[in-house]
Amino acid sequence: MTPSSALVVGTGLVGTSVALALTARGVRVLLTDRDPDAVRVARERGAGRPWDGERVDVVVLAMPPQYVADRLASLQWCDAGDVYTDVASVKVDPIRAAERRGCDLSRYVPGHPIAGGERSGPAAARADLFRGRPWALCPTARTSPDALAKVRALVELCGGRVVITEAAQHDGAMALISHAPHVMATAVAARLVDAPGLAVGLAGQGLRDTTRIAAGDPALWREILSRNAGPVADVLTAIAGDLHEMAEALRGGRPDVVTELLREGVTGRRRITAPSAN
Amino acid sequence: MTPSSALVVGTGLVGTSVALALTARGVRVLLTDRDPDAVRVARERGAGRPWDGERVDVVVLAMPPQYVADRLASLQWCDAGDVYTDVASVKVDPIRAAERRGCDLSRYVPGHPIAGGERSGPAAARADLFRGRPWALCPTARTSPDALAKVRALVELCGGRVVITEAAQHDGAMALISHAPHVMATAVAARLVDAPGLAVGLAGQGLRDTTRIAAGDPALWREILSRNAGPVADVLTAIAGDLHEMAEALRGGRPDVVTELLREGVTGRRRITAPSAN
Repeated sequence: MTPSSALVVGTGLVGTSVALALTARGVRVLLTDRDPDAVRVARERGAGRPWDGERVDVVVLAMPPQYVADRLASLQWCDAGDVYTDVASVKVDPIRAAERRGCDLSRYVPGHPIAGGERSGPAAARADLFRGRPWALCPTARTSPDALAKVRALVELCGGRVVITEAAQHDGAMALISHAPHVMATAVAARLVDAPGLAVGLAGQGLRDTTRIAAGDPALWREILSRNAGPVADVLTAIAGDLHEMAEALRGGRPDVVTELLREGVTGRRRITAPSAN
Repeated sequence: MTPSSALVVGTGLVGTSVALALTARGVRVLLTDRDPDAVRVARERGAGRPWDGERVDVVVLAMPPQYVADRLASLQWCDAGDVYTDVASVKVDPIRAAERRGCDLSRYVPGHPIAGGERSGPAAARADLFRGRPWALCPTARTSPDALAKVRALVELCGGRVVITEAAQHDGAMALISHAPHVMATAVAARLVDAPGLAVGLAGQGLRDTTRIAAGDPALWREILSRNAGPVADVLTAIAGDLHEMAEALRGGRPDVVTELLREGVTGRRRITAPSAN
């Protein structure tokens, strides 16, 4: 089932990292991107060679979520490969869009490697970006076992740890651990726009850590958030409720309520730092 | 004006780090803590020797904010030193409490080194903890120039960068850059308490960064937040408003509103990462 050839569509950070990982494992990798410079950089880094229309075993759609269904449809139309996967961080929306576009869902395995970095683009790509990292695969009821096996083999070639889950559960989880936290970091950082110079001058590593992910590309994040709107909005509403409660407890001098939320934070934090979670 | 002796009251992370830095610069450092084990560890690390009541040039109160005024009063009562400073991360409340207790405010220079770490206690202390870091001093109208000069010299011996500001401005700045962000990290982490195992298993470095400060001691943070309640509550209310707006924009399909907050986050983040801010 191990793929011997792959087409990476979109040679940004994630696509080029997939290409580098697969090339290192002996897969013949072909590259394409709407930006020829991105393909050039990826090729110069040894990620593969430009695609000339050759048919491959697996096509990897490495692009923002709003483009996945259209590209899947056109690539399936020209029969670019045997099976298809994508790497977008939302899953329900692209699957629905692919269904509406009449894509062959039996040969599409929606995927999402949980890896990335502050920098984007092919120059920041690394063959070991996915090593030991979870990589969600969200086969639908129509995904063929053969397609799933091929994409699973591709993920394993990249060093990723396959996590099979339903698209809706994936999106709910991402709202909680990535999409809502992105908005939170953004909301904290947004308060700094008009902050006095004194505050900016006193800022330390804690604030830089808390707001690091807020540096992400607004155009990309608008799409991620908008395409997982319901789950993200629910988490944000719940958090806003907690913040209101905290503000009222502080104004009303109720330290027990303050302590309770702080303790919950410590408990929640422990769930993602305990040895078993790594 | 350079102090030749100092008493560090409270040999936790910050107090022991002050003691190590001063000892390294040739200051005679004396140590005391309500926990004899903490003094023992600090002494074994070469931070100084246990206090026997000797009078010193500068007394450093390195303890949570709620204890500062009481200890200042009792130490001034027994004339432990010439001038006094503290390191608590809120300033208006301890100053008011010191005033109510009848402390000699002319010899008290409220201070706050903006440095710390994930770990606490004397074992985690480092002589270079304050090197190049801002260290706020908030003299009141009654602080004597002589006291300010002595404490300034102490900060400089520790390698800190003196930032003179009013207590209320300090507290407003800290609400924005530290206290409210702590609550934000806590609110994100609190959502993980009941999160599905899938979400916890997919969590990555971004979430760990965003929630890192939520691991702080709830008892300490309850006091910090409660003693800066008004400014912190105002920031939290403003952020909760942004989160509500974002949630409504997502539910209502208004990507322009989503993009606007994301862009503000990028702009705000840039203020604390631009080279001039470091």
